[in-house]
Amino acid sequence: MRLAMIGLGRMGMNMTRRLLGGGHEVVAFNKTADAVEVAVGHGAIGAQSIDDVIAKLTPPRVVWLMVPSGGPTEQSVVDYCERLSPGDLLIDGGNSRWTDSVRRHDHAAARKIHYMDIGTSGGIWGLKVGYCLMAGGSPEAFRMVEPALKTLAPPNGYRHVGPAGAGHFSKMIHNGIEYGMMQAYAEGFELLRASGFNYDLADLATLWNQGSVVRSWLLELAASAFQKDGDLSSLRGYVDDSGEGRWTVIEAVERAVPAPVLTAALYTRFASRQDNSFGARVLAALRNEFGGHAVKTSDKHG
Amino acid sequence: MRLAMIGLGRMGMNMTRRLLGGGHEVVAFNKTADAVEVAVGHGAIGAQSIDDVIAKLTPPRVVWLMVPSGGPTEQSVVDYCERLSPGDLLIDGGNSRWTDSVRRHDHAAARKIHYMDIGTSGGIWGLKVGYCLMAGGSPEAFRMVEPALKTLAPPNGYRHVGPAGAGHFSKMIHNGIEYGMMQAYAEGFELLRASGFNYDLADLATLWNQGSVVRSWLLELAASAFQKDGDLSSLRGYVDDSGEGRWTVIEAVERAVPAPVLTAALYTRFASRQDNSFGARVLAALRNEFGGHAVKTSDKHG
Repeated sequence: MRLAMIGLGRMGMNMTRRLLGGGHEVVAFNKTADAVEVAVGHGAIGAQSIDDVIAKLTPPRVVWLMVPSGGPTEQSVVDYCERLSPGDLLIDGGNSRWTDSVRRHDHAAARKIHYMDIGTSGGIWGLKVGYCLMAGGSPEAFRMVEPALKTLAPPNGYRHVGPAGAGHFSKMIHNGIEYGMMQAYAEGFELLRASGFNYDLADLATLWNQGSVVRSWLLELAASAFQKDGDLSSLRGYVDDSGEGRWTVIEAVERAVPAPVLTAALYTRFASRQDNSFGARVLAALRNEFGGHAVKTSDKHG
Repeated sequence: MRLAMIGLGRMGMNMTRRLLGGGHEVVAFNKTADAVEVAVGHGAIGAQSIDDVIAKLTPPRVVWLMVPSGGPTEQSVVDYCERLSPGDLLIDGGNSRWTDSVRRHDHAAARKIHYMDIGTSGGIWGLKVGYCLMAGGSPEAFRMVEPALKTLAPPNGYRHVGPAGAGHFSKMIHNGIEYGMMQAYAEGFELLRASGFNYDLADLATLWNQGSVVRSWLLELAASAFQKDGDLSSLRGYVDDSGEGRWTVIEAVERAVPAPVLTAALYTRFASRQDNSFGARVLAALRNEFGGHAVKTSDKHG
């Protein structure tokens, strides 16, 4: 099928390549022209503007957004909804908040434009392995894009999981679980390192992937990281978060569902970015106030 | 090789079968004779007593204990150390606390008996898939039992991870990580169920195993569980723990290594076994005391 890929970053470019490899025609567009040239080099049809994207598709058009969540996605949805025709399909494959996706779906639906939120997992490995795709929206919209999903995903790796919002909700929870799993491994490996047994962590991570209960793809990645740098001394333990973990915890709070592990995993990321935190200084001050416990003076101000 | 398997429960019996399938001779012993009969039916050499086990092996003997941790393992170590000869090898393949394994190793070493602690993961799937084996002890002891390990494990699924205690320490951390991963999935699936999207959880767990970041063997088991009972309504959410999770958290506390996720996962298991907990009653009482908030009266006493 022919479809447009908007946003040729790490994800969008690799997805374009996988689609082209599967025999699809991809109209590629990006806010900077150099990425479009790269996509054209892979066999894509380059587009120079939003209007050019629209012109290079024939109704019913399929436009797949793979742009950063938040402002860029919002603007793209507005731009394409202005130009698409009734019966066309606009897809957000990024990591948007599910409530935004429901709102955007309704915005598109008012113009009789189909809209799907498709949670996309697989990272930089997706090009080779395929992307796991969680699609939310109408069955009709799903059928329109299914040939592309079949190419993008590994066997059985795409699914229509529910109505508008269901794709991004499930992707949000997927990422929340990912935070928890990663933190479980992180704590375990830190304890192994603190054990005094001088474990070869690359060896142990590799071993655990052979028949143990904790075997997983993340553990394969851990083995790979330890093989490159057994002590991870080339890295700083500063861990970003990109939204889904926070939204997962907010959902838990709003629905009064206890999620202590997912919450602790998120907070550990926050703490990893702190240096001489105010909370820790409050604790030190209070210990000093009530018990005269020694305090360390600061050589920097956080 | 010929070796003895002591303890023919869920793990020991399946390990005996896998060893027999690999061409080894297994002297099988259990505190109840019926399990010995079953093992003999699979091709094992039955033993009627500890002395009979010793008699049916020739030095250097290899005896593998697969009995419950705590008292039964302690008693078995004492019993076999009394009867084994210098140069023989006694193995604890159960889930003993690593400090006990170090002590038992030293007890055996004083009698010039080799001792290994071999963490064994794989559960009821080990018979088919193979067991992931983390061996602690001397290189010499490791070489004595290596032919059996090769049969018990999947390819590359056994490793000499360090000296006495290193096997059970790593198995303890493995299980601690397992608690954390399980709880991450548990919270995620509870949030999906609370979402209002009416997700097919078997479908979603199956989908996530195709190329997503959270794919794992535990997630395959989750898919299987949801396929049998989508709402898990046939189960009660009462979750036992068997020691390693607690020991992991105690290690974290003693070494001052933050392990919030592994700790929360353990505490969630404790909470799952409480009904109308005293802590919750204290909270309800305090809310009532200071704010006159309504309390529910108890129809049972916890």
